[in-house]
Amino acid sequence: MYLINNCYKQLILLAHLAEDSGVRGCMIFKPYGLDIWENIKTKLNYLLKKTGHNNFYFPLLILKSKLKKEFNHMKGFAKECAIVTHSSLKLKNRQLIIEEESKLKNELIIRPTSEAIIWDSFKKWIKSYRDLPILLNQWSNIIRWEMRPRFFLRNSEFFLQEGHTAHSTKKEARRHCKKILNLYKYFIEEILSIPVIKGRKTKLEKFAGANTTYCLEALMQDGKALQIATSHFLGKNFSRSFNVKYINKKGIYKKVWGTSWGLSTRLIGAVILTHSDKYGLILPPQIAPIQVVIIPIFKTNDYFNIKILANLVDKLSLCLKQNQISFRYDNSPKYRPGWKFNESDVQGIPIRLTIGKQEIEKGKIEVFRRDTRKKTDYKITKLKNNLIVLLKQIQRNLFKRALILQNKFICKVNNYKEFKQILNTKGGILSSHWDGSTSIEKQIKKETSASIICIPSINKKEIGKCIYSNHFSKQRVYFAKSY
Amino acid sequence: MYLINNCYKQLILLAHLAEDSGVRGCMIFKPYGLDIWENIKTKLNYLLKKTGHNNFYFPLLILKSKLKKEFNHMKGFAKECAIVTHSSLKLKNRQLIIEEESKLKNELIIRPTSEAIIWDSFKKWIKSYRDLPILLNQWSNIIRWEMRPRFFLRNSEFFLQEGHTAHSTKKEARRHCKKILNLYKYFIEEILSIPVIKGRKTKLEKFAGANTTYCLEALMQDGKALQIATSHFLGKNFSRSFNVKYINKKGIYKKVWGTSWGLSTRLIGAVILTHSDKYGLILPPQIAPIQVVIIPIFKTNDYFNIKILANLVDKLSLCLKQNQISFRYDNSPKYRPGWKFNESDVQGIPIRLTIGKQEIEKGKIEVFRRDTRKKTDYKITKLKNNLIVLLKQIQRNLFKRALILQNKFICKVNNYKEFKQILNTKGGILSSHWDGSTSIEKQIKKETSASIICIPSINKKEIGKCIYSNHFSKQRVYFAKSY
Repeated sequence: MYLINNCYKQLILLAHLAEDSGVRGCMIFKPYGLDIWENIKTKLNYLLKKTGHNNFYFPLLILKSKLKKEFNHMKGFAKECAIVTHSSLKLKNRQLIIEEESKLKNELIIRPTSEAIIWDSFKKWIKSYRDLPILLNQWSNIIRWEMRPRFFLRNSEFFLQEGHTAHSTKKEARRHCKKILNLYKYFIEEILSIPVIKGRKTKLEKFAGANTTYCLEALMQDGKALQIATSHFLGKNFSRSFNVKYINKKGIYKKVWGTSWGLSTRLIGAVILTHSDKYGLILPPQIAPIQVVIIPIFKTNDYFNIKILANLVDKLSLCLKQNQISFRYDNSPKYRPGWKFNESDVQGIPIRLTIGKQEIEKGKIEVFRRDTRKKTDYKITKLKNNLIVLLKQIQRNLFKRALILQNKFICKVNNYKEFKQILNTKGGILSSHWDGSTSIEKQIKKETSASIICIPSINKKEIGKCIYSNHFSKQRVYFAKSY
Repeated sequence: MYLINNCYKQLILLAHLAEDSGVRGCMIFKPYGLDIWENIKTKLNYLLKKTGHNNFYFPLLILKSKLKKEFNHMKGFAKECAIVTHSSLKLKNRQLIIEEESKLKNELIIRPTSEAIIWDSFKKWIKSYRDLPILLNQWSNIIRWEMRPRFFLRNSEFFLQEGHTAHSTKKEARRHCKKILNLYKYFIEEILSIPVIKGRKTKLEKFAGANTTYCLEALMQDGKALQIATSHFLGKNFSRSFNVKYINKKGIYKKVWGTSWGLSTRLIGAVILTHSDKYGLILPPQIAPIQVVIIPIFKTNDYFNIKILANLVDKLSLCLKQNQISFRYDNSPKYRPGWKFNESDVQGIPIRLTIGKQEIEKGKIEVFRRDTRKKTDYKITKLKNNLIVLLKQIQRNLFKRALILQNKFICKVNNYKEFKQILNTKGGILSSHWDGSTSIEKQIKKETSASIICIPSINKKEIGKCIYSNHFSKQRVYFAKSY
């Protein structure tokens, strides 16, 4: 079940998910990788619409002057953004150079996130309590100038789902923020089969511009944590900066409360790091672009059996289509079955059907489960029902085994020596006391590379002593090395 | 049926399609406008996948050095592109300024189109004839620095569908190029109800980097033409510039032949300018985010009838859902029915159902067709079938009346005086002789603002004299003022 860590990129290339583009930190999404994202998008979009969110699309480019308005927000993103300064090129001595006359008076930033441009619109849209709440969502590409880019996990350009809401009361805003966190948890556990830990970030780790950042963290097979999704309670920070007020029922002007929340193509990185094994990817059926691959085995001159085979596959295809099971019939003569088996393993296709002369004669089909690697023969007549059940089982099984691993990786640690020892051997999540001081948090991170991934929401209040300072601590928090 | 031209933007605002963003040439897509694009995307994507195209996603940013490679292509886009030169901002004296140290060694261009970056990848992917053809497609946002931006028609940022293919023979590439043009024609006429004229561009008007640009042109209600979609035969231009070769069956190296083709959110502008009337938009049912609006009429204290109404609407909703008819039940107490009628007119919802006490008692529902503005009462029991038929009729009727208008607007003109006169009065498409010279084409454009929108593919060869130069001409071409 373990993915060797340095194979991560190689696996992405072999499975045809993505490849290098030659532009620093930007990758090319290949059809298989893009289709996974499209599946995630379709399913999450459905849930967001159902909970009252409407999709908008705001411009890619943000005026520098708008980004500046919310001070903490700006500070968080200013160091890593793509800045557009000119609008024209010209040829000079056969070189293509910037036309200095096209210098923009107002520089533009490629959005690293859209709070600034959206709150600028909220100001125009919100006048009265009747205009609230506003629940909006956006699917877009964004740029963050990553220092150490990594496929899916830290791309300079990536796809983001970002929600932005405005509310009349603090209570409603905070409740919405938590509602989304729960929706994300449901989605990620049910659709991506990744168990997550719910919590909130420390002051040091929270989103630039938020009062509170709620988060979902997952544990990868190598014992490192990965931030999966976040939901930010923005308080009145943005309404203050952008001067967004509404008139309440009593005719009094009030500042608007805000939230924002998002997840990204990073999820695909999480799927790879959670479910892969030494044979390649394993995709949860709910997001697999191909749920079933059918590989025929025949001698190229055996026309009689080829015809019977073709008939059988036709019927099977129709049946799969009717049951909305996505499949690929891999009958290309270019490659041998062994090559195809290997390919479907690497690509993590949940179920593989093998059909040959023997199977046809027996009225059976060999069914291979990618997760357990078990083969079973099923009667052709009962295949459909079995496939539906199997896909559900695989989805559940992937979650179950990831959860077992996660639980193994969480342990309570009571002193700093043990803390460092476990971090450098087993890794995982260390539940430890911390005195709440940002400087101690930074110091631990500096010495061990472990950060506080979250203050878990399930934690019982427990009095203890900070592992580093020995000062009073009111609860344990989760430390881990993370992606 | 005529949309007053200067109401174009106002209509877009009133119908909640889009609004200004404060960033020059970039607009905010509101849910209703975005949903139209999503419908277009879903339906065209299906056709493109069915014809063997796979979706990729290439980076937003292109290295300046790559853009430079294809000379004509570069020349065509160099003057209007967004150039990223720095990657970091800093605060100085409370001003947010560019960090000069973050100046990029290699400037990046936000894609105005993706030929350059895609052919850079084709070079890596294509080795042998076995790797061909490559048929790929991309849905993305692009930036072109428009001098005179206009909502949907000429945005600086807009959504583009762009196909890129590589072939081993000239014949195959050209055939594919034309196949796509026909697919576009089918799509635009069937789904958007816009009749189009098929043709090819002159040397002056063709795509930067293409050998031939095939195009679809449509005629708007004000007599101006609008380019709807293009399909470019790239010849060996890009394979030469990017050095893309394959080994053929005989072991000989050959250059690859290319095509590219695209359409964009401009289509939404075309829908508005083709189908609107003085009451507002009229959306073809195939792309309408809401196909049916249900408006109840009741007194707020008439609880008995409200309950019966609610029951009826529940049943109706279920039935519409089952038949995949999208609808909105507009029962908000905030607005009166008259306001809602007006709103659904402006938004161009194809069918409006009104239900009140009287209708319930009679077992009938009032059905209003947005295109003809005719009201009919239908029995509730027969409503479903009637709605399905009506939606098809509206779709066809919109096409038919746009076609009648188009035909009225095409006329043969044989001398320059008449040419100018018609242009300045009736407008439309003028089918005239032209001697094939680019300088004459430019001169006519300069004097009249009319360009050659296309050399129509249906034109019979006809010998004549150029309306401007009196030189020999072998065929008529289509002139028009265009968007």
